[in-house]
Amino acid sequence: MAGVLEGVTAPRGFKAAGMSCGIKRSGRPDLSLILSEAPASAAGVFTTNSVKAAPVVLGGRLLAGDAANVRGILTISGVANAMTGSEGISDNESVLSEAERLLGLPPRSLLPACTGVIGPRIPVDRVLRALPALGTSLSSAPAAGAQAANAILTTDTVAKQSSVRVRLSDGTRVRVGGMAKGSGMIAPRLAALHATTLAYVTTDARATPQGLARILGAASEETFNMLCVDGDTSTNDTIYALANGAAGGADASDDPKLAEAFTTVLRSLARQVARDGEGATKLLTVNVSGARAEPDARAAARAVVASTLVKAALFGADPNVGRIACALGYSGAKIDPDRVDVSLGRPHGGVPLIVAGRPAPGLQNGTGRKVRELLRQLDEVRLDIDLHDGVARATAWGCDLSYAYVQINAAYRT
Amino acid sequence: MAGVLEGVTAPRGFKAAGMSCGIKRSGRPDLSLILSEAPASAAGVFTTNSVKAAPVVLGGRLLAGDAANVRGILTISGVANAMTGSEGISDNESVLSEAERLLGLPPRSLLPACTGVIGPRIPVDRVLRALPALGTSLSSAPAAGAQAANAILTTDTVAKQSSVRVRLSDGTRVRVGGMAKGSGMIAPRLAALHATTLAYVTTDARATPQGLARILGAASEETFNMLCVDGDTSTNDTIYALANGAAGGADASDDPKLAEAFTTVLRSLARQVARDGEGATKLLTVNVSGARAEPDARAAARAVVASTLVKAALFGADPNVGRIACALGYSGAKIDPDRVDVSLGRPHGGVPLIVAGRPAPGLQNGTGRKVRELLRQLDEVRLDIDLHDGVARATAWGCDLSYAYVQINAAYRT
Repeated sequence: MAGVLEGVTAPRGFKAAGMSCGIKRSGRPDLSLILSEAPASAAGVFTTNSVKAAPVVLGGRLLAGDAANVRGILTISGVANAMTGSEGISDNESVLSEAERLLGLPPRSLLPACTGVIGPRIPVDRVLRALPALGTSLSSAPAAGAQAANAILTTDTVAKQSSVRVRLSDGTRVRVGGMAKGSGMIAPRLAALHATTLAYVTTDARATPQGLARILGAASEETFNMLCVDGDTSTNDTIYALANGAAGGADASDDPKLAEAFTTVLRSLARQVARDGEGATKLLTVNVSGARAEPDARAAARAVVASTLVKAALFGADPNVGRIACALGYSGAKIDPDRVDVSLGRPHGGVPLIVAGRPAPGLQNGTGRKVRELLRQLDEVRLDIDLHDGVARATAWGCDLSYAYVQINAAYRT
Repeated sequence: MAGVLEGVTAPRGFKAAGMSCGIKRSGRPDLSLILSEAPASAAGVFTTNSVKAAPVVLGGRLLAGDAANVRGILTISGVANAMTGSEGISDNESVLSEAERLLGLPPRSLLPACTGVIGPRIPVDRVLRALPALGTSLSSAPAAGAQAANAILTTDTVAKQSSVRVRLSDGTRVRVGGMAKGSGMIAPRLAALHATTLAYVTTDARATPQGLARILGAASEETFNMLCVDGDTSTNDTIYALANGAAGGADASDDPKLAEAFTTVLRSLARQVARDGEGATKLLTVNVSGARAEPDARAAARAVVASTLVKAALFGADPNVGRIACALGYSGAKIDPDRVDVSLGRPHGGVPLIVAGRPAPGLQNGTGRKVRELLRQLDEVRLDIDLHDGVARATAWGCDLSYAYVQINAAYRT
């Protein structure tokens, strides 16, 4: 595995396009298409929220129908198409049908996704008018992948892409590419089939729909499910994977090398989403080790990245180590408070923050001028937490809580 | 039951005092004492956080020892006395012993509580030097109760007090009084024995320690456990109750009138804590009705008051009804999204926000200028949510998320 390429068009046999169809008042792109030249195996993981957006309901149905002959993903950004009832489903179906017709694809071969404001319906006419141009701009060039990645964004400030090349166990050289959007309404949930934000993974490896579902489920669990921006689990969260087999070779459904490549791509995307969380000024990575069992490691890591008070302290470069201990304490993880060690991870020095459950020397009285100065300079903060109670580990990603987060969310839409 | 009196000194046989002993750099009061003239039954509910402050550990031990002869509560604010190990326990024991000696009380008859920054130890000398003056200023006057209530505050902007008179089933007229502090690191937890913030209830009714524990547990469950400021469950949360029987009459441990009075006082205090949440500009009350079962009602109400996005929208007076539906959807409560009705509660008009799972007319396209104007004017917002799926109900309290919250928590201590 080596060298980062681009996004979803990195694997062979995939094209992409992105453009503005006029949903966003800002004129920013809001219509995105990924297309596989040949029928692909597909898998999806969806939000566990019981208020599900129409595209989530429809996407689930389509995958339950025929997940072996999927041709692509059409994403509309600017509207969530949630709380739109049966009309929302029909709107999404109309748009997909017309896209399939224009592109000469079989019915029900495109998967839907939406992201944006909850409530409004899809402005179907605008989307239909834009589809011909979207189709003609499809390309396998890196720039087309970037355009598609750009067109799914909402409050994001940058597009998120990732890709890797990997040599499978049978010698086949394949590629895995991905794109994602995030920014707000992002929180991990415990259910196995749960995604956050929109993220798409393409590969030219060969896999069955069932195999792809296993790979995607496992990779999502330790990447997007360990991501938290604001604790709100969206109505629209979706991760799709497409495997078109264009690289040839045997069925790689059970090849750990393919699974590892999926995890690598989704981890990169999850970090990019955390980094670009609404209003974020710092990326927070929390590594927990020494947990009694993996669920404890995961719960501990998630509680720290999700803590409003840890996030606010991080924004203020405040080495308020009590808030870290507090979050570990209410995480639900089995911990012995007197054994917990926490340090600021390398490359930033391995500075101790908590030693055996007590504030590290120099931090007892809440001054910690040196650590404060260090935190102020960092735009990536890594906390290494050792629970000294076992061998299980987990990593979670989040960001700080800034004035800008409040501003964005108090005034989103105005 | 009628007429609000003052706080913890409203019931007969209770004195209180509050003063500054120099822990807070601001010079604000930081040492608070409640004293019962006669031995009282006592009960406590404590944080479920597994990182417990020393006074939480010690308070639990003292109640397990002798809960029938408690004389009072000594609270230190400015330091949490958490992450302080065995020295933290010793520090707190020294302070309590000296207070008992000065006041002529038996050993182990005072209960401890602390609130403030996690990490630093109690400046024992300062507290010891102040104790004589604290003892001589004890009084049963309303002003003394107010001073005690004032001396437990941290980032709070106002003291919280409440009291009621009630005629018990056997005709005895008793009083129930209370005080609380809150402001940040406040979140409900599901465990039965869990409290948030510091809250104390005094009564001159007669009750056994066991009876008082039942009454306090039930009343806390539907009041302080339904309160959320920021989702962080503190290391120090404690609710204590003292019943000294000074009103005479029979044992009221099983009298529903006493239980109701406790709930009334704790509900008033919980609302006051929500109202004064860190940086809060609006109180949010969420009434859920029509739930299939009480746990569903409680989960639904709590998710809405705890949602970062709902809180930010409230701050911006943004009628972003999708965020309310979204929070209901991930709450874990069993809901049928298509049946949910939400309205802005009276006295503010009963304005519909969500009707049968869809945005109310005028709110579909996210403008809702009238509702926005209304929200802007309100400093108390009540959401009435009917799930139309049963008869269970619950109420939760919270507040909005403002720039000031971020400012307070990014710079607390500096």
